[in-house]
Amino acid sequence: MIRIFVTGGTFDKTYDQISGRLVFGDTHLPEMLNLGRSRVEVSIRTLMMVDSLDMADGDRELIVRHCRQCEESRIVITHGTDTMVETARALAAGVADKTIVLTGAMVPYAFGSSDGLFNLGSALSFAQTLPWGVYIAMNGQHFAWDRVRKNKSTGIFEALTDET
Amino acid sequence: MIRIFVTGGTFDKTYDQISGRLVFGDTHLPEMLNLGRSRVEVSIRTLMMVDSLDMADGDRELIVRHCRQCEESRIVITHGTDTMVETARALAAGVADKTIVLTGAMVPYAFGSSDGLFNLGSALSFAQTLPWGVYIAMNGQHFAWDRVRKNKSTGIFEALTDET
Amino acid sequence: MIRIFVTGGTFDKTYDQISGRLVFGDTHLPEMLNLGRSRVEVSIRTLMMVDSLDMADGDRELIVRHCRQCEESRIVITHGTDTMVETARALAAGVADKTIVLTGAMVPYAFGSSDGLFNLGSALSFAQTLPWGVYIAMNGQHFAWDRVRKNKSTGIFEALTDET
Amino acid sequence: MIRIFVTGGTFDKTYDQISGRLVFGDTHLPEMLNLGRSRVEVSIRTLMMVDSLDMADGDRELIVRHCRQCEESRIVITHGTDTMVETARALAAGVADKTIVLTGAMVPYAFGSSDGLFNLGSALSFAQTLPWGVYIAMNGQHFAWDRVRKNKSTGIFEALTDET
Repeated sequence: MIRIFVTGGTFDKTYDQISGRLVFGDTHLPEMLNLGRSRVEVSIRTLMMVDSLDMADGDRELIVRHCRQCEESRIVITHGTDTMVETARALAAGVADKTIVLTGAMVPYAFGSSDGLFNLGSALSFAQTLPWGVYIAMNGQHFAWDRVRKNKSTGIFEALTDET
Repeated sequence: MIRIFVTGGTFDKTYDQISGRLVFGDTHLPEMLNLGRSRVEVSIRTLMMVDSLDMADGDRELIVRHCRQCEESRIVITHGTDTMVETARALAAGVADKTIVLTGAMVPYAFGSSDGLFNLGSALSFAQTLPWGVYIAMNGQHFAWDRVRKNKSTGIFEALTDET
Repeated sequence: MIRIFVTGGTFDKTYDQISGRLVFGDTHLPEMLNLGRSRVEVSIRTLMMVDSLDMADGDRELIVRHCRQCEESRIVITHGTDTMVETARALAAGVADKTIVLTGAMVPYAFGSSDGLFNLGSALSFAQTLPWGVYIAMNGQHFAWDRVRKNKSTGIFEALTDET
Repeated sequence: MIRIFVTGGTFDKTYDQISGRLVFGDTHLPEMLNLGRSRVEVSIRTLMMVDSLDMADGDRELIVRHCRQCEESRIVITHGTDTMVETARALAAGVADKTIVLTGAMVPYAFGSSDGLFNLGSALSFAQTLPWGVYIAMNGQHFAWDRVRKNKSTGIFEALTDET
């Protein structure tokens, strides 16, 4: 059984046709798992629906607490990409003996050109196979929480090397 | 570096608007990896483009030979679902010391409702993390080649238990 | 009020993931009108769900009878493209004082690359504005029933000229 | 031959994955006409790429001038929905003896759930059949420029009656 915590981010943004803006509604996770014909046993819980740039310390504490307290030892978190690494760091400091995989999307799932479904398949798979630790799964790759950064100009997650 | 071998299957079927039939054209793999913003280093080679029900022994021998001879030790194979388990068995008998993950789709990628992108993200991730062996990755799950069967009436891959 | 008669055709084919074949299920018309945010008052009735190559004389008589007897004087018919012209001819012989527009699709609506939504918007608009007569609306164009043929090798509907 | 003038609006907005915002890039018109297998002879010109709330008097004068001066007597204009009626009024005052149809979308074409393709098929069809005048084509319907308003709370274009 894998626990999925939803926190918002680009992944779950949708287009509001009255205001003409990107907004949060309900999470697309169940629809996406259905599209992927996923048979992985999951339990989904929405913790918040925020842009990760708007995520406050209290939000991160809430995420850490839920990851620590939930029964499941394998966890996927959907999260905005901008501060994903920061939340991963908080999780590494606060949760032991679990495999936690953060993922997100560069383009909202509701857009035809979204990477969301690919990333979800990837994150769920890494969560089943990686040893205890906190990871980021993006671009088909996985990175330990302290070995990665988001390149703000390309939008790509890059491995940190010792020289970096 | 992951080697991807394309063999056809539902995954890569496309609609021919003149004949009104589902046919094979070029593989959608590069387009799908692009959509998923994949940064995994891959080398793609199309071995055949067949419906897996039409796959002959010679086709399986070809797949085994390519998996044995290629430089890469981590391999993803896209394959029709109907005889995926049979090909997995041939690979287990013929290839040692490599991680080989077979995947496919229940609905062609070119359809809006395809599970293909989810499965590709999943298979690429399992291929990076599972120990040597031959696996099937479908429905977000992975199965050792000798512990799985496709349920023909539901289209779902199911784990074989000792009692089965 | 526009009457819409559904007869099947490529338009409404869907992919059956168990058999791996294109089959007919329920019509996609309500979903498509919803996607197009259509506010045209319509009344939809499925007369049959057949490939137009399988359409028999009795099927055409049924279509003609429904068009003649329905209250609405403006009608859209979704129809397979292969024998659309033949049905249009039967309608021209059997129905007077109504505007009837036949349309269809080269690619099933359920495919990402379908022309169905474009054609539906087009057919509904022609049905509101063209004078009494029987027309085919495809490729953004309209043709009188006796001035058009489907080019079997390109899939395009072409105007017949006097020299043809 | 139909002239298509592109002015921007929701229709052509796309998602910028670096900034996370909806922006204008190139118009999607050619791609959409291709998807619709349109065989209507068109000549496309982008006049501007703006949100219609940001459209200034000078922009409207430019649109009017292009419609008056172009050779074609049948014109489709893609336009943001918020001030579409205002531009229609300017066109009615400034252009005679042409059929001009304004259309747009409530959801960007690049989103899976867009009404854009339906509206484009509809607008092109109305442009071919309506008598000289300035019209708005939305929701599968057409309205004379002085008989319509956009309902801001529902996003739907509604006919004005004499009592309104």
